[in-house]
Amino acid sequence: MVKKPVITLLTDFGLKDSYVAEMKAVILSICPKASIVDISHDVEPYNIRMAAYLLARSVKFFPKGTVHVAVVDPTVGSSRRPIIVEIKNAFLVGPDNGVLMFAAEKLGVKDVYKIENKDFMLPNISKTFHGRDIFAPAAAYLALGISPKKFGEKISDYVKPPFVKPKISGKKIEGEVLHIDNFGNIVTNISEDLIKNLGLNYGAEFDVSFNGKTRLKVKFLEAYFKVKVGDFLATTNSGGFLEFSANMANAAKILKVKPGMKVNVFF
Amino acid sequence: MVKKPVITLLTDFGLKDSYVAEMKAVILSICPKASIVDISHDVEPYNIRMAAYLLARSVKFFPKGTVHVAVVDPTVGSSRRPIIVEIKNAFLVGPDNGVLMFAAEKLGVKDVYKIENKDFMLPNISKTFHGRDIFAPAAAYLALGISPKKFGEKISDYVKPPFVKPKISGKKIEGEVLHIDNFGNIVTNISEDLIKNLGLNYGAEFDVSFNGKTRLKVKFLEAYFKVKVGDFLATTNSGGFLEFSANMANAAKILKVKPGMKVNVFF
Amino acid sequence: MVKKPVITLLTDFGLKDSYVAEMKAVILSICPKASIVDISHDVEPYNIRMAAYLLARSVKFFPKGTVHVAVVDPTVGSSRRPIIVEIKNAFLVGPDNGVLMFAAEKLGVKDVYKIENKDFMLPNISKTFHGRDIFAPAAAYLALGISPKKFGEKISDYVKPPFVKPKISGKKIEGEVLHIDNFGNIVTNISEDLIKNLGLNYGAEFDVSFNGKTRLKVKFLEAYFKVKVGDFLATTNSGGFLEFSANMANAAKILKVKPGMKVNVFF
Repeated sequence: MVKKPVITLLTDFGLKDSYVAEMKAVILSICPKASIVDISHDVEPYNIRMAAYLLARSVKFFPKGTVHVAVVDPTVGSSRRPIIVEIKNAFLVGPDNGVLMFAAEKLGVKDVYKIENKDFMLPNISKTFHGRDIFAPAAAYLALGISPKKFGEKISDYVKPPFVKPKISGKKIEGEVLHIDNFGNIVTNISEDLIKNLGLNYGAEFDVSFNGKTRLKVKFLEAYFKVKVGDFLATTNSGGFLEFSANMANAAKILKVKPGMKVNVFF
Repeated sequence: MVKKPVITLLTDFGLKDSYVAEMKAVILSICPKASIVDISHDVEPYNIRMAAYLLARSVKFFPKGTVHVAVVDPTVGSSRRPIIVEIKNAFLVGPDNGVLMFAAEKLGVKDVYKIENKDFMLPNISKTFHGRDIFAPAAAYLALGISPKKFGEKISDYVKPPFVKPKISGKKIEGEVLHIDNFGNIVTNISEDLIKNLGLNYGAEFDVSFNGKTRLKVKFLEAYFKVKVGDFLATTNSGGFLEFSANMANAAKILKVKPGMKVNVFF
Repeated sequence: MVKKPVITLLTDFGLKDSYVAEMKAVILSICPKASIVDISHDVEPYNIRMAAYLLARSVKFFPKGTVHVAVVDPTVGSSRRPIIVEIKNAFLVGPDNGVLMFAAEKLGVKDVYKIENKDFMLPNISKTFHGRDIFAPAAAYLALGISPKKFGEKISDYVKPPFVKPKISGKKIEGEVLHIDNFGNIVTNISEDLIKNLGLNYGAEFDVSFNGKTRLKVKFLEAYFKVKVGDFLATTNSGGFLEFSANMANAAKILKVKPGMKVNVFF
């Protein structure tokens, strides 16, 4: 057992209800020493992509051995499988619908297990709240040091991450909007590495379109304050993705950009 | 003293202000080992019923000895009494306005005490924030193992829970809407047990009205995914109450249903 | 090292994103025993005054040795300095833009240090997220017991708090609105002490204007319930500031008052 285990929670449950608290109650009943960290509970209802993005950017900052639970689970109660993904230095726990796999593939999947063993579930399993009845106890037992092998069979036919990969054709990158953050920054699926591999450096000029319409000419810069208040820029964000922003203003609101829109970057 | 005591907080304070943090500051000053769990702080301002529902469904999942603080307290500073309710395996702390008693009666009231002893309060008691000045320290001292008898006199004339009980007449259940959750599920005060006692099983058809108007024919099913996306259903939720939902859609918004509305279920 | 160190976080990051979680990940990686308390993450984006008010009213309730991190940081990545402020019984960590100094001056500034030592930062420092890469690790190392002197040079030319002080002329106090809380209470920068020094007691009548327009006659009373539901009153709030409220109603919404407005109180 890790001396001071950390368990994180990422859901679309919101904070108005007691759902998140009930998951924490179950965790602390099994593993009283756990430090529980909320990644977010304000994922848009059923938005697997948003949760996958938030998980993928957070995992590497947590201590070795952290157990991450992600529950965005529109088909709860159906035959979709509950799974544990073992990655380097961490475990991911959640439904087999892709929500875990963007983070997992980024960090390197070791093994994926079904959660089948009822010894590690609550005695009464509701049909609508596996976050509390299956995923929370699984995370708590993993944090106690139980091997993932004890939970169920190894599988390899898990659901893939819910993202397309960006395409490059000539001087164009075709990507999409993954996420709009609290400040209105428009986060794309275009990684910092891809930008670097194309030899693009700070100071470069980009011509951008969202859903083929809104067009924008921006400079690729290292920080928001490098342009005047209200002006647009491109930057690579703290999660390692290309984003479009406005200094001290809400770029997504001004440009009416939403998650899921296509992005074309002409460089 | 419990080795790793758990204290929960449930308020209508919101998370924009520092009110919740000030309660936690007081708790950690008295009982540094406490794990503090937020049940919800987004109870609608002054909505005692909503808080009572959230508390009642959460309490049983927490470890033995947990201290639950619920502060929805429109008459703070008046002569309404601060109380401790001892129930099986837990303590409830809050104002004597009914907010604690739905949970308490569900789990079995042992004793109710007034909080009068100034040794267990902050030295300066504001007239507007007993959550910080009276309830938080009371919870922290209970978590340290102080007997509830030390806080004040036993009472029996406490305020009852703020709910009517559902009525059955012929083939009709008359209830009300307790709560709308983050997904738009419409939670009623009709318990799973009542449904079972009436011999109603999955597959049954219900004819439902809200406030005598909106009418809806739904099947009683075990999980959301059992109907098509956007279609309505009835189910018993993870808190043990009958709820009306739409698969991957917001039933309350579509039907314009709000907490407090009357529900008639014809079966 | 403090046995059970407390670290608080106050930001404008919101709770939708993983930013706050990433700060906690960094803290727990360095200082696994820390109890982390959120003061608020729903500060309006870039609103340094709101954060300064929330910090100033909270700090004194926390245990001795608590490390408070406040990140409202519109010029992140520029040459504005990251600082540590040592006050009696606590440390404040954040950008040198005034956000820390209202609390610091209230409690008594001992010393202010630049954060320069890269040993106490993450190895890769992004240009847009010093909360995670500089402030979180600084807080964690302070909580471990590292002296603030190890972080960088002492400075005295730090940015002052972002507030005007109220002025008194004859029977008039000129102040401003610091904050609107979750209940719609209108919090001013006029302190309880100033009110007391003017010899004003409960029962006094105030004539109030906001931005020179809305006029209101209210009584100065000790608690909300002292007026009828919906009626206005003045009170001193639990943070020690004069506020204008409506019993069980949202005074700010009704009066259309916003943070930053001028307040004139005629007594």
